[in-house]
Amino acid sequence: MGSIGELGEFGLIGRLTRRLPQGPDVRLGPGDDAAVIAAPDGRVVATTDLLVEGRHFRRDWSGPYDIGRKAAAQNLADVVAMGARPTALLVGFAAPPSTDAAWAERLYDGLADECRRAGASVAGGDVVGAPEVTLAVTALGDLGGGAPLTRSGARPGDLVAVRGRLGHASAGLALLAEGRDGPAELLAAHRRPEPPYEAGAEARDAGATALLDVSDGLVQDLGHLADASGVRIDVDSATLVVPEALGPDGLRHVLTGGEDHGFAGTFPPDSPPPPSWTVIGTVGRGAGVRVDGRVPDAAGWDHFRG
Amino acid sequence: MGSIGELGEFGLIGRLTRRLPQGPDVRLGPGDDAAVIAAPDGRVVATTDLLVEGRHFRRDWSGPYDIGRKAAAQNLADVVAMGARPTALLVGFAAPPSTDAAWAERLYDGLADECRRAGASVAGGDVVGAPEVTLAVTALGDLGGGAPLTRSGARPGDLVAVRGRLGHASAGLALLAEGRDGPAELLAAHRRPEPPYEAGAEARDAGATALLDVSDGLVQDLGHLADASGVRIDVDSATLVVPEALGPDGLRHVLTGGEDHGFAGTFPPDSPPPPSWTVIGTVGRGAGVRVDGRVPDAAGWDHFRG
Repeated sequence: MGSIGELGEFGLIGRLTRRLPQGPDVRLGPGDDAAVIAAPDGRVVATTDLLVEGRHFRRDWSGPYDIGRKAAAQNLADVVAMGARPTALLVGFAAPPSTDAAWAERLYDGLADECRRAGASVAGGDVVGAPEVTLAVTALGDLGGGAPLTRSGARPGDLVAVRGRLGHASAGLALLAEGRDGPAELLAAHRRPEPPYEAGAEARDAGATALLDVSDGLVQDLGHLADASGVRIDVDSATLVVPEALGPDGLRHVLTGGEDHGFAGTFPPDSPPPPSWTVIGTVGRGAGVRVDGRVPDAAGWDHFRG
Repeated sequence: MGSIGELGEFGLIGRLTRRLPQGPDVRLGPGDDAAVIAAPDGRVVATTDLLVEGRHFRRDWSGPYDIGRKAAAQNLADVVAMGARPTALLVGFAAPPSTDAAWAERLYDGLADECRRAGASVAGGDVVGAPEVTLAVTALGDLGGGAPLTRSGARPGDLVAVRGRLGHASAGLALLAEGRDGPAELLAAHRRPEPPYEAGAEARDAGATALLDVSDGLVQDLGHLADASGVRIDVDSATLVVPEALGPDGLRHVLTGGEDHGFAGTFPPDSPPPPSWTVIGTVGRGAGVRVDGRVPDAAGWDHFRG
């Protein structure tokens, strides 16, 4: 099939867009100046992330299909974290002209499959040449008449709860950095986060006061929530699920590891979250995050310093 | 003020978002998992572009303010080319940690000012570290109840018309490549395209059958329109405005130069465009683009081959 440079911009766009079936929310898909996507609520939720080779993924650690899955997942999770239903993704793809076209196709298969998991479509995008592979993913979603679940709604007395895996992606990344090839479950967790997309609707239906996706690490992300809400959050580490597979640093991975794209939310005490959620702490007056009463020393992840 | 690496991700985000006033369409701006933007039509127009240093811009040829203006302009123009009103931009910004924070601030000033020209806001985004400066810009817009102006609506008998500058950005780029420092008007046209955003509403009000923004070059973009509509387009070069300042290659710049982000549209003969547009040809049965009856040999611009 050859390289994407041999195919050229328009040849590559043709090959990639054929792999992107369009769901009913897409009123006009790839091929025009812009896409047109349903926004029945009259508002649209929108978020964008840049993923850069060598910094957010390594082509020797993750195949193209998993890179596509993960790039889609982290943006779809941001839409769900607002209590919205994901509708569409726009994808900017930069790569060296020598990149194998089949590699690019597998990446788009991953993007499309992750969208399918969340009920969304890849509705448009851009392809350009660049020294490194870079992905720019924008996700859109619909609030279905509900108020957005922001980070600023937590109130003293609320319960703090989480949904989905924590620490697995971080433990998997640590294994890859050590040159280890297992446990497979953890390597897979790093490569393919699989956020529980149903968490947004569950949180909204249960009356959540605040919600976010855990991308920088539990302590750091709860810190963002505490700052935005003007509250203090107390976590009881004994309530956290720390599987033995996470190894001796398991609790550290669970507290500071990002990129599993689980969800953390706050719920009034008289409307607790459903059983699929784990209550891990409480909201109080004050500021910051305490774990077992102490200020944790481990930072999360800063994309310039990390 | 120091480098963006010294500021860190959250410090930089704080500095940049303070420079981004939010218009009335932004229901929730930067700082949460996602932004929330008005979409009163019930559909949202969305488009995304990646701009990579050394390929789409050079830091020695354009300052940060102009890079921001241009990055915003090319995406806002895509929204306008659908006949929509731009509402918001999301911006992914990747840069080496050594980048001067003041440089990044000027870039965001350019993004914000170009949004202001178009009546939109920078509502969210992402900042990451990377070897090259890369911008990922997504623009959103509202159709206001109208049908989108696609590339596929041109019909035999329609008039072909253009609005805005053609060839100026290309002539300016050629001057920079030759190491020349004028004419200033052409260098400015390369650095800061200034699309006539009112063109979308003008075209819609006049009953345009198709519309696109001229980003790859007039001949190539009319070729996209002809392909999508299943028609042939005949251009009469004598009708094209070729200012003397464009130099001896003026007509070539006008026919093949992209990145001025003017607009080209087709109009039924009984509802011609307003006087701000220039009629340059006609739509007929067949395929492809002819200039003065001949198939032009000059290609436009291909981002992998160009």
